[in-house]
Amino acid sequence: MEAFIAAAEAAAEAAGAVIRPLFRSPLLVEAKGDASPVTEADRGAERAMREVLGARFPGHGIWGEEYGPDRVEAEYLWVLDPIDGTRAFVTGRPLFGTLIGLLHRGVPVLGLIDQPGIGERWIGARGQQTRFRSPLGGTPGCRPCARLAEAELSCTSPDMFEEKDRPGFERLRGAARRVTWGGDCYSYGLLALGLVDIVAECTMKPWDWAALVPVVEGAGGRVTGWRGEALTLESDGRVLAVGDPALLPEAIGLLGG
Amino acid sequence: MEAFIAAAEAAAEAAGAVIRPLFRSPLLVEAKGDASPVTEADRGAERAMREVLGARFPGHGIWGEEYGPDRVEAEYLWVLDPIDGTRAFVTGRPLFGTLIGLLHRGVPVLGLIDQPGIGERWIGARGQQTRFRSPLGGTPGCRPCARLAEAELSCTSPDMFEEKDRPGFERLRGAARRVTWGGDCYSYGLLALGLVDIVAECTMKPWDWAALVPVVEGAGGRVTGWRGEALTLESDGRVLAVGDPALLPEAIGLLGG
Repeated sequence: MEAFIAAAEAAAEAAGAVIRPLFRSPLLVEAKGDASPVTEADRGAERAMREVLGARFPGHGIWGEEYGPDRVEAEYLWVLDPIDGTRAFVTGRPLFGTLIGLLHRGVPVLGLIDQPGIGERWIGARGQQTRFRSPLGGTPGCRPCARLAEAELSCTSPDMFEEKDRPGFERLRGAARRVTWGGDCYSYGLLALGLVDIVAECTMKPWDWAALVPVVEGAGGRVTGWRGEALTLESDGRVLAVGDPALLPEAIGLLGG
Repeated sequence: MEAFIAAAEAAAEAAGAVIRPLFRSPLLVEAKGDASPVTEADRGAERAMREVLGARFPGHGIWGEEYGPDRVEAEYLWVLDPIDGTRAFVTGRPLFGTLIGLLHRGVPVLGLIDQPGIGERWIGARGQQTRFRSPLGGTPGCRPCARLAEAELSCTSPDMFEEKDRPGFERLRGAARRVTWGGDCYSYGLLALGLVDIVAECTMKPWDWAALVPVVEGAGGRVTGWRGEALTLESDGRVLAVGDPALLPEAIGLLGG
């Protein structure tokens, strides 16, 4: 596992070196929301990660958001999202992240969330305590929160829900203490620091959630689908994360997945 | 003006020294959204700022969110918000800010936005180019964006609007290219870096907007009420900021203030 972690860290460094120069750059300012410079950063960062991981583990599969699947049937499959939180990136908010997940026979065993601007990194590995480093402080470990009425809910955007999923989310939101918007992968990182209690989102691809599972679960939380099922490559894209597993039954009931 | 700027910077340092140790602290994690530790940080930071400013300018007025107004009839009035973006602060997102504004006979002449976690600072002074420093980069200056259909809209939360203001905001949102949620004062800072084009919000108190006006206007943008009127201590709390002043007529028309 340590060799996998070292490789994931090296891949994150390589991706950060591509991404950092573009963040808040004149190129991005001038593009005024046009996707092409971000796509460039996305693609360049994924190529850099593929190079690092491919050189170290030529037998592993790799599935990235930008360049698609490559040997997904391999025993070990790296799942990559160079810039998770494109809207945050484009508008200059340092809450986007580079996501590196490793699946073993479909089960997430390693996850890394990297915030290359601030220099924050979460590393989760199956069977290990989640590690975190940041110049801003924060200690890994989800907090106890057994009741939804006390729970801090987080969600990237009210616009991310399809019509069929909105009523469930609204029930959950009504039962939670409060909701804070924005965050993408960063919300799951905050959950692993005990600062957020629950995240419910939709339309998540494997590269959006694979890295989050080991980070959250290594901090004592749980990540499942909206019916409480384990996430797999065939999942329907609805993701539920809780810091305190005691929240799961109530949350699943309200989401009515 | 330079003496005022130096005082505002000293006040921001004093506030940051109070706020930083609490950010993501075990105390905050254990409070689980309970307001009291934040209130403590808020109050401590405002006291620290009042001490710095009061010692340098004993004849000035001070109006802070926590300790209220003090000689608001003075020629110069400092307007303080120690932690703007309480929800961001409580959930560990480094997008909250310390706001320090200075009004001269009711007109905002100096504004400072400080992000004490990351170490970012915007300084706007009437008649001067806005200054910005950050370890993450970014260059002060709003970008041209003459059409709402190309504009990146930002807003703290869809829940901040009263019923009467929602239709106007929804019209604006429908006409804009995209909306990104979350941000509080940070959105206005990003507007001053040319990364966001328009912000429309409600229920803003003087300590929420006083510092933002010189920062945005010193970067080439405009901050007004929803009817395009100048903001005053008697304003109705509805704030509109644009990076390109050409956006104002269309935005005001849609908001229908």
